[in-house]
Amino acid sequence: MTQRYRMTVEYHGGPMVGFQRQKNGMSVQQAIEEAVEKFCGEEVRVFGSGRTDAGVHAEGQVIHIDLETETTSDKVMGAINYHVKPLPISVLDCAAVSQDFHARFDAIARHYRYLIVNRRAPLTIDKGLAWHVPVPLDAEAMHDAAQVLVGDNDFTTFRSIHCQAKSPVKTLDRLDVIRHGEEISIMAEARSFLHHQVRSMVGTLKLVGEGKWTKQDVIDALEAKDRSALGFNGPPQGLYLVRAVYPD
Amino acid sequence: MTQRYRMTVEYHGGPMVGFQRQKNGMSVQQAIEEAVEKFCGEEVRVFGSGRTDAGVHAEGQVIHIDLETETTSDKVMGAINYHVKPLPISVLDCAAVSQDFHARFDAIARHYRYLIVNRRAPLTIDKGLAWHVPVPLDAEAMHDAAQVLVGDNDFTTFRSIHCQAKSPVKTLDRLDVIRHGEEISIMAEARSFLHHQVRSMVGTLKLVGEGKWTKQDVIDALEAKDRSALGFNGPPQGLYLVRAVYPD
Repeated sequence: MTQRYRMTVEYHGGPMVGFQRQKNGMSVQQAIEEAVEKFCGEEVRVFGSGRTDAGVHAEGQVIHIDLETETTSDKVMGAINYHVKPLPISVLDCAAVSQDFHARFDAIARHYRYLIVNRRAPLTIDKGLAWHVPVPLDAEAMHDAAQVLVGDNDFTTFRSIHCQAKSPVKTLDRLDVIRHGEEISIMAEARSFLHHQVRSMVGTLKLVGEGKWTKQDVIDALEAKDRSALGFNGPPQGLYLVRAVYPD
Repeated sequence: MTQRYRMTVEYHGGPMVGFQRQKNGMSVQQAIEEAVEKFCGEEVRVFGSGRTDAGVHAEGQVIHIDLETETTSDKVMGAINYHVKPLPISVLDCAAVSQDFHARFDAIARHYRYLIVNRRAPLTIDKGLAWHVPVPLDAEAMHDAAQVLVGDNDFTTFRSIHCQAKSPVKTLDRLDVIRHGEEISIMAEARSFLHHQVRSMVGTLKLVGEGKWTKQDVIDALEAKDRSALGFNGPPQGLYLVRAVYPD
């Protein structure tokens, strides 16, 4: 009998081509699928709450798989963590769930955090884990401008040309910019995001932070509904998928 | 005229043999000395607030150098950060100071933090930046036992056999064990520490945390004044030199 397992997965996106299978390198999806096959011989399909780009990290990606093999959630977690080595992917928890659960379709919100380290000196301990911005940023101005983007909006300007979503209209529930010393965290929450949306918004807010753009420029860019009206994307290594939220 | 410069330095200890020059690999000291030579041709000696072992990180190591070259503290900082690449060493700030200042002899306290990630799942984002302990630890019991070590004590038990300090008696001002979720931080403060003292204390507290040692076992080990009475050292990648404190 088929049993569905739901897992929370953490990964360092650095050495991988992203969550989704690609022909040009190892993905989180492929790594976990191969670990499961090494464990029990089954060829499974991993479904995730959302795709993350190459280099993007996750603290709480949620996935599910179906297994025919008689086993326990504890053994599934241990086996994947064992066989996925040395890739920086780690199953934090695993539970047997009903066939009704779907990691992608049931998620009602995704929470992302984007970390900027704002200081002149290069990064060492945080290298690969944040965007290093040496010019001083005004985090309060960034937060103020960010509120322009909160709500129901057509995010065409903040969308990758490769985005496959049917509609560019999304509801952004939260976009807070918070400074703690040299660290600036940007917290983004929505039911779902367009491809590159968080990194596009962060790239734009960085322009505001350094005084190159005003809040009005952000309003104009949003209203332009034109990708070419955008500044640029923040690099992937600052982005973390923090959690996926489900009705339970 | 000779000008002394004081700097705060951050580094990821992973790829280096420690702070002090060694024949078997690149040290923080050698890397900065070579960066200075590339900058202005001078062969300088770097003095630090304290040595850190191979693999140990620093968020606030303090060093000083003397330069004959006419320059500015700003240029010194920029030049070292440029020439030290790609090693994970970063000068956070730099100031011209009086010849009276000495990074090692003037420091009146050193603050260390030791980070344990206490969870079953392997580390990904924190790999190389913490000690992964999969068995559940009782942080309150660790904190309680740690208080045994605070104060004036003969730390022979907690000292490397290679330690060069004249006396094994040190005053430990603080040894707090604090849990935040799966992270356990051990904060250690003293005027100075013996070689391997923090990692030895952490290794012992870990035994307490998993219930293998009692508080009385820690008292007995301290009173034994015998290195062989010790459990073992925590690994270097969990240790951070947070700051060195000076009278100013």
